[in-house]
Amino acid sequence: MTAPLHNEQFRLAARPVGLPKPGDWQLTSAPLREIADGEIVVKTLYLSLDPAMRGWMNEGKSYIRPVAIGEVMRAGGVGVVVASRSPRFAVGAQLAGGIGVQRYWVGAADDKSAAFVQIDTRMAPLTTWLNTLGMPGMTAYFGLLDVGQPKAGETVVVSGAAGAVGQTVGQVARLLGCRVVGIAGGKDKCDFVVNELGFDACIDYKNGNVRDGLKQHCPNGVDVYFDNVGGDILDTVLTRINMKARIVICGAISQYNNTSAVKGPANYLSLLVNRARMEGMVVFDYAARYQEAVAALANWLQAGSMKSREDVVDGLERFPDALLMLFEGKNFGKLVLKVADA
Amino acid sequence: MTAPLHNEQFRLAARPVGLPKPGDWQLTSAPLREIADGEIVVKTLYLSLDPAMRGWMNEGKSYIRPVAIGEVMRAGGVGVVVASRSPRFAVGAQLAGGIGVQRYWVGAADDKSAAFVQIDTRMAPLTTWLNTLGMPGMTAYFGLLDVGQPKAGETVVVSGAAGAVGQTVGQVARLLGCRVVGIAGGKDKCDFVVNELGFDACIDYKNGNVRDGLKQHCPNGVDVYFDNVGGDILDTVLTRINMKARIVICGAISQYNNTSAVKGPANYLSLLVNRARMEGMVVFDYAARYQEAVAALANWLQAGSMKSREDVVDGLERFPDALLMLFEGKNFGKLVLKVADA
Repeated sequence: MTAPLHNEQFRLAARPVGLPKPGDWQLTSAPLREIADGEIVVKTLYLSLDPAMRGWMNEGKSYIRPVAIGEVMRAGGVGVVVASRSPRFAVGAQLAGGIGVQRYWVGAADDKSAAFVQIDTRMAPLTTWLNTLGMPGMTAYFGLLDVGQPKAGETVVVSGAAGAVGQTVGQVARLLGCRVVGIAGGKDKCDFVVNELGFDACIDYKNGNVRDGLKQHCPNGVDVYFDNVGGDILDTVLTRINMKARIVICGAISQYNNTSAVKGPANYLSLLVNRARMEGMVVFDYAARYQEAVAALANWLQAGSMKSREDVVDGLERFPDALLMLFEGKNFGKLVLKVADA
Repeated sequence: MTAPLHNEQFRLAARPVGLPKPGDWQLTSAPLREIADGEIVVKTLYLSLDPAMRGWMNEGKSYIRPVAIGEVMRAGGVGVVVASRSPRFAVGAQLAGGIGVQRYWVGAADDKSAAFVQIDTRMAPLTTWLNTLGMPGMTAYFGLLDVGQPKAGETVVVSGAAGAVGQTVGQVARLLGCRVVGIAGGKDKCDFVVNELGFDACIDYKNGNVRDGLKQHCPNGVDVYFDNVGGDILDTVLTRINMKARIVICGAISQYNNTSAVKGPANYLSLLVNRARMEGMVVFDYAARYQEAVAALANWLQAGSMKSREDVVDGLERFPDALLMLFEGKNFGKLVLKVADA
């Protein structure tokens, strides 16, 4: 390395109450340290912004330890190796992993929490590696297939249908021969989901009644509901499930910024009436099988039978505002933050 | 038949709001009609009083059609055939099935909704056929084994532990080598569950904190929760479940008489964090396998490795009050109504 590179990092300054405020972040700046044997420097190209990040900012037991106060905010991303003293990754290699909200990641090439893997941009563009071929795609693939277990001819409903996970859930379900109905906010998203992604229908929860929409578009009831939102929408879908229905609890974006208690599903006794199941999933459990999903999804993408849509916000400094877009439903497709040119 | 027998029947007069009131019932009286070919008369001996009966009194879609206004209230029971023009059951045969809240049942011997089966009181006394060897036992056996899927060494928690379903759930779990913790209301019930039924511990929700009790008695967390009560107790158990826990939704007695909305489990996202499952069950789905459960449970009873406790209220006319005992937690063991001597 020649002149030391300069790093900028977003650190968690305070645990948010409700929506994260600007003051919950601290943007720090410092020269990059020299690397030791076995270490690499990864230059961040794109960061993945995900609803789950809100949960990581809270204290308390969850499926992953909280980000500590003063720590660089956790985030997945793709980047390129710009310095290496490890045989594992050469300079120029493109990696995906837990980069964090910073311009450069520095550490051991085999760092467990970063868990870098080399990606091949001949298979799909960089941003797709944060979407269909990244965590959202893995979440969709294993959540739908392993937990939801849809069969051809069944009806699959997915909320957050135009979002990162939802778009892949719906398209995989369609490819499996299911009837696919999305729930999304706004006419543009609904049109996209139906016209571009091939869903059978999409219910616009901002401009209509979800209950009526389900009645209209799921004439045979709901066999699998893939829930990304929780709250009233989960409660409404519970009134339309079929016998032996499977509800995949992937997230609850409507509840993440609550300052009062989470709204539990008042209609959960529909599980009893219908002998149905509600089951949570966390993508990390499937790490050993990611290659299986990447292969399947990349094949579908290359064959043109599936699409991947990203919403790119440009500039590391826009991170705090960009993150809020998720909770206001302002992103259209998988939200990514562009940090640098490839 | 000689002189016509006289029947008394409790009919549903109005759909209750909250707890059933005396005025929600009508007690009618009429001579029994003559029977035709293929028909039988069953004299009611004991009726089963169950929390589920409250649900049958409500209008609306459920796992079984509601009892109609003016119709004899649905109830399981045991009785003896006192007249028969069917080769299926002879006079003197003891039957269990959907007798209804009445002194006599009259109809076709193969009536689908009554679904009579002959019982053998050499295997177990009459009231046990409404408890461990009846619907509660079937519910406990299949709900625990098929839905809960406990493994030896795991911790099983069951609410309504001294009740009909709970007592069998806990005892079967104990026989499978699980750590078994009950939740029940009052010291007497808790003592019974531990000292008589062999549970490892019992939490008295009326005289203590369920959360603290779970911490103390489930040091390794909760692997299976068999829920008969819903409400706050379900929410509290959700905070103590293990990875891949199974929650069996069998009932929600705390919510059956609500005049406001059911309280949904606010902590349901614990399912996500713990990759856990919440699944409803209805015993009727296992009808084809009842014999398997009866054989297993009767063996355990005869070997003295399991007990069956019933709480007998004497007199058909006491039906409206006896039913309320369930919702006030006043019954101690499976609640049955004695209608006539065997």
